[in-house]
Amino acid sequence: MNEVKLKPIGHVLSSVTERMHENWGEIKSKIILNPEHTGALLGLENFSHAIIVTYLNEAKYEKEKHLQRRPRNLETMPKVGIFSQRAKDRPNPIGITAVEIISIGDDYLEIKGLDAINETPVLDIKPYYPQYDKRDSARVPEWVDRLMKNYF
Amino acid sequence: MNEVKLKPIGHVLSSVTERMHENWGEIKSKIILNPEHTGALLGLENFSHAIIVTYLNEAKYEKEKHLQRRPRNLETMPKVGIFSQRAKDRPNPIGITAVEIISIGDDYLEIKGLDAINETPVLDIKPYYPQYDKRDSARVPEWVDRLMKNYF
Repeated sequence: MNEVKLKPIGHVLSSVTERMHENWGEIKSKIILNPEHTGALLGLENFSHAIIVTYLNEAKYEKEKHLQRRPRNLETMPKVGIFSQRAKDRPNPIGITAVEIISIGDDYLEIKGLDAINETPVLDIKPYYPQYDKRDSARVPEWVDRLMKNYF
Repeated sequence: MNEVKLKPIGHVLSSVTERMHENWGEIKSKIILNPEHTGALLGLENFSHAIIVTYLNEAKYEKEKHLQRRPRNLETMPKVGIFSQRAKDRPNPIGITAVEIISIGDDYLEIKGLDAINETPVLDIKPYYPQYDKRDSARVPEWVDRLMKNYF
């Protein structure tokens, strides 16, 4: 398969208009659905969390710069491969974040903790299933805890 | 944004060739990277889990059938919107699964628990960060526990 074509299902509505490196945790935003998906959120009100799949349209992957790099180019971080970090400049700029659901309307989902700026295209919304998404035994190298300390 | 074009970064190598509804948990499979991404897994050996983003190329979304439906068409399940379930027949057929890392090579990642059949295109590999992905307080409606009982 050479190429995959996808059509955003909606977009992010947020007061945040520039990318930040910290403090996303308390940010409230909305996903506004395109009209053809009205009704697709039925039942989501019974979940506490959702996974938002975004298309990071401002990202740009350059193999020479990004195949291996230090997260956020920090000297205090080790050089790791792009599939060993969550940097946005990756071959397919897909973002995945588990967020708290605040409220739901016919054509929108209000959430807390999404690390995406205003107008970011959204590719998918999934209910958070612990069976799929929660891994209690997950271990990470120590640099991840340093990197993410104030991110959310 | 009308359309997004992505190029798979690799594919699934698995002994499973037909979709199953149960017992994915013990399945071992590999992600084979396309040659241009050799080196992109550097450092992933220090993580225990990864998130695999797949393109479910056999899925087909028909709005009339899938916008709202009972999961797996089971009478014992409630009718819910497509963004309130993990069914593969969705507007953008993207699959997301947190899996255990078994081993890593220059051009492959061996994993346990991926619910994707042989030859499934892979769009992204992300290290599992508890900060992004683990939500201890996540609650789901009771039907999810029934549906997923033997899935993994």
